[in-house]
Amino acid sequence: MEQIKNKQIVLASRPIGWVEESNFRLVETILDAPDEGEVLVRNSYLSLDPYMRMRMDAVKSYAPYVELGQVMVGGTVGEVLESNYAGLKPGDLVTGSLSWQLYGVTKGKNLRKVETTKVPLSAYLGIVGMPGVTAWYGLNEIGQPKASETVVVSAASGAVGSVVGQLAKLKGCRVVGIAGGKAKCDYVTETLGFDACIDYKSPDFRQAFKAAIPDGVDVYFDNVGGEILDLVLASLNPFSRIALCGVISQYNQSEPHGIRNVRSLLVNRARLQGFIISDHLEKWAEILPQLEKLVAEGQLKYRESVAEGLENAPAAFIGMLKGENFGKQVVKLT
Amino acid sequence: MEQIKNKQIVLASRPIGWVEESNFRLVETILDAPDEGEVLVRNSYLSLDPYMRMRMDAVKSYAPYVELGQVMVGGTVGEVLESNYAGLKPGDLVTGSLSWQLYGVTKGKNLRKVETTKVPLSAYLGIVGMPGVTAWYGLNEIGQPKASETVVVSAASGAVGSVVGQLAKLKGCRVVGIAGGKAKCDYVTETLGFDACIDYKSPDFRQAFKAAIPDGVDVYFDNVGGEILDLVLASLNPFSRIALCGVISQYNQSEPHGIRNVRSLLVNRARLQGFIISDHLEKWAEILPQLEKLVAEGQLKYRESVAEGLENAPAAFIGMLKGENFGKQVVKLT
Repeated sequence: MEQIKNKQIVLASRPIGWVEESNFRLVETILDAPDEGEVLVRNSYLSLDPYMRMRMDAVKSYAPYVELGQVMVGGTVGEVLESNYAGLKPGDLVTGSLSWQLYGVTKGKNLRKVETTKVPLSAYLGIVGMPGVTAWYGLNEIGQPKASETVVVSAASGAVGSVVGQLAKLKGCRVVGIAGGKAKCDYVTETLGFDACIDYKSPDFRQAFKAAIPDGVDVYFDNVGGEILDLVLASLNPFSRIALCGVISQYNQSEPHGIRNVRSLLVNRARLQGFIISDHLEKWAEILPQLEKLVAEGQLKYRESVAEGLENAPAAFIGMLKGENFGKQVVKLT
Repeated sequence: MEQIKNKQIVLASRPIGWVEESNFRLVETILDAPDEGEVLVRNSYLSLDPYMRMRMDAVKSYAPYVELGQVMVGGTVGEVLESNYAGLKPGDLVTGSLSWQLYGVTKGKNLRKVETTKVPLSAYLGIVGMPGVTAWYGLNEIGQPKASETVVVSAASGAVGSVVGQLAKLKGCRVVGIAGGKAKCDYVTETLGFDACIDYKSPDFRQAFKAAIPDGVDVYFDNVGGEILDLVLASLNPFSRIALCGVISQYNQSEPHGIRNVRSLLVNRARLQGFIISDHLEKWAEILPQLEKLVAEGQLKYRESVAEGLENAPAAFIGMLKGENFGKQVVKLT
C-alpha cells in the first residue's frame, strides 16, 4: 500500500484547573498497514465528551488515563479503507474508538458497522451512540421513572440530558431540565418538549427551580454534580432515585463543592448510584435499536455542535467543558 | 379500676444545637383505662435511640415530629397489667412503642409478646429489636457483603454498629469499626471480634484508618455521616455499597459538613442508599428469629448502658448523642 500520512492530537501536558490548548499537540505520523484481522478506517467525525477530561489527569479511575505524548482517546465514525477482517470491506461505515486522529487501525471486531439510511453518520456518536445509551440506561435502570413522577435532568440540552428528558416525557413524566442560558432553555422546552427548563445562570435560579417542581423530585439524572446536585437533594421525595452520570461542574475546581444535603438522602430513603456506561456493554444491543427507531420516527430530537477539522478539536473540547457547545459536540474530520 | 398515676417526659421546647435537659419536662397524669381491644402496660425499659433527635425538630421528615407538650416517642418493653385484647393477658411481657412514660395504653395489635427464657427483656429494645433488625437489613439488603470483602461500620460499639460488624464477620468479611475512644475500640476488637477498630478521636485517625483498609472499602454502614462519611468515600472500591442509616454527627451542627468526595461515587460506580427500618416491617418476622438464635447461641454479643429511672432519661439521651453511652442505651423504669 502507499504510505498514508496521519495527523493526531496527543496529550502534551496535564491540565492544572481549566484545560488549555497548550495541553494538546498536533503531530504527524505515518500509518502502519493493518495486520491480519485489522481494519484501516478514515475517520469522518470525532466525538468530544466530558469523560475525556478525567482521562487527562494522572489519577486512578475506572479507565486508564492517557499518557503524555499518547493520542487522546475518543469515539469516532468513519469509512473502511482497507480490511483484513472478514466482517468488513472497503466502503463500509463503522463506529468505534479510533481516537483524536484522521485515520486509525484497529481489530475489526472492535468496530460496529452502521448504516445511514435512517439516521446520519454523526448521530452514531450521539443519540444512537454512547450518549444515547448512557441516557437510556441511567434513566431506566437507575432512575426507574413511573408515569406522572417528576424527573429532573441537568445539562438538559446536551448529548445525554436531551435524550434523558425526551425518554422521560415518552414515559409520561413531568420533566424539568436545567441548562445554561435562555437559548438552551428555549430549545429544551420548545423543541425537546420538556415541561420546564431552568437557567442555572439566572440570578433567580433557585426560586425558579423550586417553582418548577411543585411536587418535589422523584428522579434526578445528574450530569454536573456540585451545587446543583446539592440543590436537588434538598427537594427529594421519599424513595427518590439519583443517577450520577457526570460531575462536569467539578472538573476545574481546585476544591470540590461540599454537598451539604446528605441528610435528605437518609430522611427520604433515597438511592444515589454512580454508573459508567462501558460497564454495561451487554445492554447496548438491546438499547440501540430502540433509540434508532425513536429517532427515525421523529420521536427523539437532537442537535449537534460541529467543529471543522482535527486542529480545532482542542478548542471545541475546551468550549464544551465551559458549556459553550449547544447539543452533542463533534468534530468533522473529512 | 383504681386510678393509676402516670409519669411522662414531654417535649418542653425545641433544641437549638445541642439538646439540653430544659428541652424536656417531667409531668404527672392520670391513666385512662384501656378501651375495647386495648391493653394497659407497665413499661420496664425505655429505649433511647438517635432517631429521636430528629423527632424533636419541627421539620418535615419520614415520621411526624413530636409536638410541644406531647410525650416523647420511644420503644418500650413491659408487662401487661390489664387487657381487653384477646391475644394478651395480665403478666405477659410485650414490646411496643409506648413512649417515655411509666405506663402506656395502646391497641393490643400494636404490641408483640416476647419471652425471656433465652434473651433478657431489655434485649428486645436492642439486639433482638429495632437496632438489630436495622443492622441486619442495612448490611444484607443494601450492603450485600460477600466473603473476604472489607466492611466498614461507624459507631461500631453501638446498638446497631456492633450487630452489623458481627454479622459481617459471620459472613467471612474483613470488618473495620470506627468508634470513639480506646475502651470502645478494645471492646469492638476483643469482645465483638472485628478485625480492627479505629478511634476517630485519635490524632492519627486518618492514617490509622487508611492502614486498616489495605484493600479499600466494599461496604460502608454509616451511622454518623459528616467527615467520616467523606473519609470513607475517598477509599471506596469499584461497585461498593453504602447503607446510610444515621447522621448522628450532624444533628448538632449549625451547618452540615459538606461532603467533598462525591466524584468517588461516580468513578467507583458506587451505590449509596438511605433507609429507615420502619419501612420494612414485613422483614421483621424473617430477621428477628435469626437474631434471637444467634444471640442464644452466643454468636452475637452485645452490651447495654442502663440509666435508672424515667427522670434520668433526658440526661441519658443527651449523653448518647455525645457518644457517652457504651452499647445500647436503655432506661430502666421499674
